[in-house]
Amino acid sequence: MKQKLWNYISNLRITSPLVHSITNYVVMNTTANALLAAGASPIMAHAHAEMKDMVTISGALVINIGTLDEYWVESMRIAIQEANNLSKPWILDPVGAGATAYRNEVLKELISYRPAVIRGNASEIMALAQMSNQTKGADSTHKTEEAITAAIQLNQTTGAVVCVSGATDSIIHQDKLVELKNGDPLMARVTGMGCTATALIAACCAAAPDDLFTSTVTAMALMGVAGEKAAVLAQGPGSLQMHFLDILATLQEEDFIGLLNLKEGHVAV
Amino acid sequence: MKQKLWNYISNLRITSPLVHSITNYVVMNTTANALLAAGASPIMAHAHAEMKDMVTISGALVINIGTLDEYWVESMRIAIQEANNLSKPWILDPVGAGATAYRNEVLKELISYRPAVIRGNASEIMALAQMSNQTKGADSTHKTEEAITAAIQLNQTTGAVVCVSGATDSIIHQDKLVELKNGDPLMARVTGMGCTATALIAACCAAAPDDLFTSTVTAMALMGVAGEKAAVLAQGPGSLQMHFLDILATLQEEDFIGLLNLKEGHVAV
Amino acid sequence: MKQKLWNYISNLRITSPLVHSITNYVVMNTTANALLAAGASPIMAHAHAEMKDMVTISGALVINIGTLDEYWVESMRIAIQEANNLSKPWILDPVGAGATAYRNEVLKELISYRPAVIRGNASEIMALAQMSNQTKGADSTHKTEEAITAAIQLNQTTGAVVCVSGATDSIIHQDKLVELKNGDPLMARVTGMGCTATALIAACCAAAPDDLFTSTVTAMALMGVAGEKAAVLAQGPGSLQMHFLDILATLQEEDFIGLLNLKEGHVAV
Repeated sequence: MKQKLWNYISNLRITSPLVHSITNYVVMNTTANALLAAGASPIMAHAHAEMKDMVTISGALVINIGTLDEYWVESMRIAIQEANNLSKPWILDPVGAGATAYRNEVLKELISYRPAVIRGNASEIMALAQMSNQTKGADSTHKTEEAITAAIQLNQTTGAVVCVSGATDSIIHQDKLVELKNGDPLMARVTGMGCTATALIAACCAAAPDDLFTSTVTAMALMGVAGEKAAVLAQGPGSLQMHFLDILATLQEEDFIGLLNLKEGHVAV
Repeated sequence: MKQKLWNYISNLRITSPLVHSITNYVVMNTTANALLAAGASPIMAHAHAEMKDMVTISGALVINIGTLDEYWVESMRIAIQEANNLSKPWILDPVGAGATAYRNEVLKELISYRPAVIRGNASEIMALAQMSNQTKGADSTHKTEEAITAAIQLNQTTGAVVCVSGATDSIIHQDKLVELKNGDPLMARVTGMGCTATALIAACCAAAPDDLFTSTVTAMALMGVAGEKAAVLAQGPGSLQMHFLDILATLQEEDFIGLLNLKEGHVAV
Repeated sequence: MKQKLWNYISNLRITSPLVHSITNYVVMNTTANALLAAGASPIMAHAHAEMKDMVTISGALVINIGTLDEYWVESMRIAIQEANNLSKPWILDPVGAGATAYRNEVLKELISYRPAVIRGNASEIMALAQMSNQTKGADSTHKTEEAITAAIQLNQTTGAVVCVSGATDSIIHQDKLVELKNGDPLMARVTGMGCTATALIAACCAAAPDDLFTSTVTAMALMGVAGEKAAVLAQGPGSLQMHFLDILATLQEEDFIGLLNLKEGHVAV
């Protein structure tokens, strides 16, 4: 599978798909930079009047509710509907799921529109599955392992590929499970690393829309390996961010394959 | 006092309080990164429907008017009211005070809700005290020293701890005055350093809500020492920002105590 | 001309003009940092109630439609009208021109208010001239050379200095043409480099409002030389951004003059 993932990364760099992100203010800059570094072409827009046009020219859509409000939720609705009409994949990042009643209410609605992929930390995935959880902001307070059950349930109810990110990243679809153990704890000290992962998933899905599971694994593998390499060079979270972008853009096959810690498995369904 | 400040920094790193920021678009990313680097847990949200929930789960609230508009000012009102109801500290950053009539009008209202701490540059503090001043954007055009009188007045009328930041940072509450002479002129060439200071004040206040004066001094001391160390390593404002975040996350007690230039004094009230 | 451009850069650093940007969320932070690094003083605000005041205290105005919506377009209208009333230069960055019907409709209106300078990539300038083009997001898919005809037409119909940026930057006004061949392909992998160029044009125009053509050439020359020097030091797009800001702030006359690849010419009109 490692070689296949690298082929997907190469394909992303060659095809440079356009990714439309309706995302939060905090991470727009770093997300756009990560998309560019990975070889994709970012666009960020939210005006209701142009949502359909933007989805039409894009290969995938990111829906990230980090700094949601009424106007932006309506932008999301319009864009999602058009993505569904055109059978383009849209990826949900349920930032802060469980933190507020408003977030939960919006997320319940968004999930009903059937995202192609959902990526969150353990708390968020559990909140999404249960809609009865308290989270501590955007940080993860549950272990990834404990969220596997929630992810399986979420996959079954929504049909979406589900990714639980953390020290171990678990990607689940039907009976398939891939676990990745790359990355570095310092990545949690840089804002928007999760949001960046979601954006890279969208980029990979846009480049290979017929294989969303492998696309999701590809993006998470790229995140983890690039983050792990960046952490070796970093003196702290500021330099980690810089090195991470550099490595996203320059990572070579040998390093990727050599560093990737991937385990394929199955889940009982 | 230096040892006490270091203890507060250590406590911040251990307790990792959640800080809710209603702040400006320009600095959201760097502010979130600074909070994470210092050990706090940032959340940024503004939807009216979730303001109370966000304040409820947070330890402190940042109100920064840098890119205010009608919707966001209403978000601020709701969040401040809830913070006051729950006796949680909220910190006001009066960006551009005096620059426009609208800013002044909003600031007059916000001050009446009694912030726990106010941090601004000399121009902003003077404008806030006088509400009859012209500022040149977010830059400081008055010397810190000249703003001391305004800060004393502002402390007396609002009850807030007042911090005037600049080449010298002055923190004032009742008859207490602390002056800090750390930092570097290059910090003024990085956008949002003042906003970052305000966010760190909120983080320190969340970690030690019973001692807002010392918490404010702690945050400004951390800013100044980290900025001064970063400036030694920097080749310009771009690398200063990176080194600053690295040092926020890795600063050790010996360096902090050794570099801190702090003078305790009193003001005649 | 090279010496004149350097004199304009020096003058910008000395006079530190205030630049008001109504720009997109993605680039606000990096644009503000670039303005500070180059010696200008950035302000970003959009509340309708303070648009006139902000324009009054500023030396130039940036109008960048990257993340436009109804509220922000109205902010632009108010600010532009005041800038025109006060004869202050405003600079249009038509991000994504041609990508959506809404963008085209807004751009048609904005152009009718007569910007002092327009800067875009080849696709955007062609779309603006023709209003009948498809663009691929904010990336350039046409060669600069092919957009020269469109730029000439746009200059004739609007009176604005027109800059087509790309591997070659072409600045056109009446029969004057300057071509710059600096920069580095890696700059296209950093988000907002075009928006930064527009902001620097505004800064130079604010510092020398009587010579908008030379001011525009100055800004593009500074971008290109700083980017080219940064690319030599960079390991990828993350470090390019950092070095770029450092060099903007520290570039010396000898390096600028020595590296600048500038050709003056004329266009048939």
